[in-house]
Amino acid sequence: MSISQPPTPCPPHRRAAIVSIGDELITGQVLDTNSAYLASRLVEASILPVEHITVPDDDAALAATLVRLARATDLILCSGGIGPTPDDPTREALAIALGEDLVTDEPTRAALAERCASRGRPLTPLTLLQALRPRSAAMLPNTAGTAPGLFARLRPDAPAPGADVFCLPGPPMEVHAMFNLSVAPALRPVLRGGFATRLVRIVGLGESDAAAKLGPILARDRNPLVGITASGGVLTCRIRAQTPPDATSDSVHSELDRTEASIRAALPDHVLDGPPPGADRSIAPTLEESIIHALARRAETLACAESCTGGLLSEILTRVPGCSAAMVGSWVTYSNTMKESQLGVSRTLLESHGAVSDPAARAMAVGALDRSGARHALAITGIAGPDGGTPDKPVGTVHIALASRAADPATPPIVDARRLALSGPRQEIRLRAAANALALLHFRMRGLDPGRGRLSMEAACQPTAVARA
Amino acid sequence: MSISQPPTPCPPHRRAAIVSIGDELITGQVLDTNSAYLASRLVEASILPVEHITVPDDDAALAATLVRLARATDLILCSGGIGPTPDDPTREALAIALGEDLVTDEPTRAALAERCASRGRPLTPLTLLQALRPRSAAMLPNTAGTAPGLFARLRPDAPAPGADVFCLPGPPMEVHAMFNLSVAPALRPVLRGGFATRLVRIVGLGESDAAAKLGPILARDRNPLVGITASGGVLTCRIRAQTPPDATSDSVHSELDRTEASIRAALPDHVLDGPPPGADRSIAPTLEESIIHALARRAETLACAESCTGGLLSEILTRVPGCSAAMVGSWVTYSNTMKESQLGVSRTLLESHGAVSDPAARAMAVGALDRSGARHALAITGIAGPDGGTPDKPVGTVHIALASRAADPATPPIVDARRLALSGPRQEIRLRAAANALALLHFRMRGLDPGRGRLSMEAACQPTAVARA
Repeated sequence: MSISQPPTPCPPHRRAAIVSIGDELITGQVLDTNSAYLASRLVEASILPVEHITVPDDDAALAATLVRLARATDLILCSGGIGPTPDDPTREALAIALGEDLVTDEPTRAALAERCASRGRPLTPLTLLQALRPRSAAMLPNTAGTAPGLFARLRPDAPAPGADVFCLPGPPMEVHAMFNLSVAPALRPVLRGGFATRLVRIVGLGESDAAAKLGPILARDRNPLVGITASGGVLTCRIRAQTPPDATSDSVHSELDRTEASIRAALPDHVLDGPPPGADRSIAPTLEESIIHALARRAETLACAESCTGGLLSEILTRVPGCSAAMVGSWVTYSNTMKESQLGVSRTLLESHGAVSDPAARAMAVGALDRSGARHALAITGIAGPDGGTPDKPVGTVHIALASRAADPATPPIVDARRLALSGPRQEIRLRAAANALALLHFRMRGLDPGRGRLSMEAACQPTAVARA
Repeated sequence: MSISQPPTPCPPHRRAAIVSIGDELITGQVLDTNSAYLASRLVEASILPVEHITVPDDDAALAATLVRLARATDLILCSGGIGPTPDDPTREALAIALGEDLVTDEPTRAALAERCASRGRPLTPLTLLQALRPRSAAMLPNTAGTAPGLFARLRPDAPAPGADVFCLPGPPMEVHAMFNLSVAPALRPVLRGGFATRLVRIVGLGESDAAAKLGPILARDRNPLVGITASGGVLTCRIRAQTPPDATSDSVHSELDRTEASIRAALPDHVLDGPPPGADRSIAPTLEESIIHALARRAETLACAESCTGGLLSEILTRVPGCSAAMVGSWVTYSNTMKESQLGVSRTLLESHGAVSDPAARAMAVGALDRSGARHALAITGIAGPDGGTPDKPVGTVHIALASRAADPATPPIVDARRLALSGPRQEIRLRAAANALALLHFRMRGLDPGRGRLSMEAACQPTAVARA
């Protein structure tokens, strides 16, 4: 966080509003995630959102909302309603709010024409809608899609300064890309007396176990303030330091450092590594980034064998750019036939123990290790539901196993396995199973035995004896 | 706890607003799911939400919002800010908006006292806050938690009728329980003159291509009104019929049927099947549900071979409960070694054409078909980025292939392949590649050749000649 900044001609952004646009949001058919994303990015920049609002695809309603917000705030971030179909209202609404005509932005028109020409497609009137802007507005490039964004200063009561309005597309990936490219550099936060944040991620522990171990670090009157959220089997600690007006950047960061160190000391095995030196410390690597980067640093490779997760574990790992340095490949052996033919799990084993069993998970891991040539192999087999449970193996029963090649090729692989009893809907069980499997590998790479007490994603987790193959 | 019933009779609920309250929401630390839940419940009851708004834990801001909304709507559903701590603003804000004092609700106080006594706990001032209500408000029982809800009629411009205000707790489980118990029975929808909705999903077309082909069906003054949203490579048409005061349920559904038929006629190859007979027609199957159900109906099976999507295609398919009826398994062959050893893609082919090529995609599909015994096999190989692009094969170059077993086992498999030129960030390219691959299978199961002109997920798609193996 930089504390000293030259004076700027425009007033700073003190109060922000976030506007989501779309009938599919207003009717609850689609869950809005853009508002929370934009809010958290503003908070990172020390700008406080005072309102989120969702409005339908309606020019007049949106224009009235923009005018109301331009009187109450100095920054308005919109998402949605800016595509090439006639129900997209944002362009028209901004023009109404500004009291301006829509004009064609010539460079955008030329770029759209060139794009269509290079692809042998006609330049349609609908495509050309995307080149329109209110007369005083500027276009914002869209590096993740087609529809450009819009920027304007809306001053309904000029000479009062009004508000800066950024109109972004609806698809979350386009929102993220355009925020990073065009909005973040244009923010003018109040630099003094704001706050600074840091994230710390925790794996292999449930929320209440983590809270019990963190104790007073979670007190609500503490500064920096620490909160926990759980998502997809991973916990994220948010550390937020309120900075007094006379704070320096160094003093704020040493406050954050001290709190982060307390969290690491309370949960030494479970806290993931932070960002590499020099990187933005308000962003923390995800579990999959942490695993891929640790493997790549150690020049080790990984393969996966999945049954109930159906490719989810591999998909999560391959989200990480550059994962090919560590990720060899995977088998999704949904049927028993595939478990036998592709991973060499014996029919006798499957018949005597079942496909959802400790021996099956271990055999899948060893089969994947042998066939892939990787250093480590993770296996998951379980019952994700909603059907298929039995009294012995209810829905949520998942066996995970990790096989790792020993340094001496003559020695058999080291295999650890765990039985998990997970709860929740199908996709939640699958996500937690994948996070637990990655936690096994996290502990192994730290030289820790993921034995009893070190893998409790939630109260329901039940360890089995950890045997060595 | 005693229950007062909301006062009646009042004018019907035509326009609703949804208010979410809390600093954790306004800062984006917690994702608001209550608004989408309440919106979808209102839509089910034929009441149209016109605005969702999120405000911080601030009495005055919330009171001002309630007054503004009571002028613009006739129903306001709030969630959050009603717990037992002094920073919970909803109780106080409602009193400010009504211009009333807070009084103790005697039955609630007695119930709280009895509850504390029976548990041997002191009756604290914080607990007693929950017995307070604005003088004219009624308490709503909380069967899933402690804090009761509130109901009041807010008439800032009496004798204008104003709006009915329901204040619910924040935790989603408590919201659901209180909505069902106290809000749903009190809703007074415009029974005649509401609206009804239906969804239709479209695959294999970009948003502007679909809009061009739908033409006047998307006109904004049409009834039923049709809107399009794009997500993960699939388009969703939302059809909404405004029903006139004298409409019957049958006449509304035949309006929806007629519009759905127009969409199907405009895009015969691209529209997915609707829900099975007798199912809720306002919910439409997803692309993966449509594919799995069609395979299961035909008693056909599928295997996948994935490179750049890294398991995403398999993961999407196995989200569908019961997918084991159709899904055999998959290979994630991230490395060339895995492509050779697991799918039998020849080294010569990989060396002469590269792993991202039409021949490689076809060989992966045929290898997966042979080894899985499935009826169909889909393959994906490409460059998802952000690195790894070359002038010949820029980031976003993806080859997809579908191999299907011929009826006569002596005949070689039928193989179709396509080259896609996708844009966007890594995960968007992966999602669109997976949706395109599923579109190939959709066309094949419809007996259509996915040739030129039938697969254009976006302007950037470039077909290659479709050859048969």
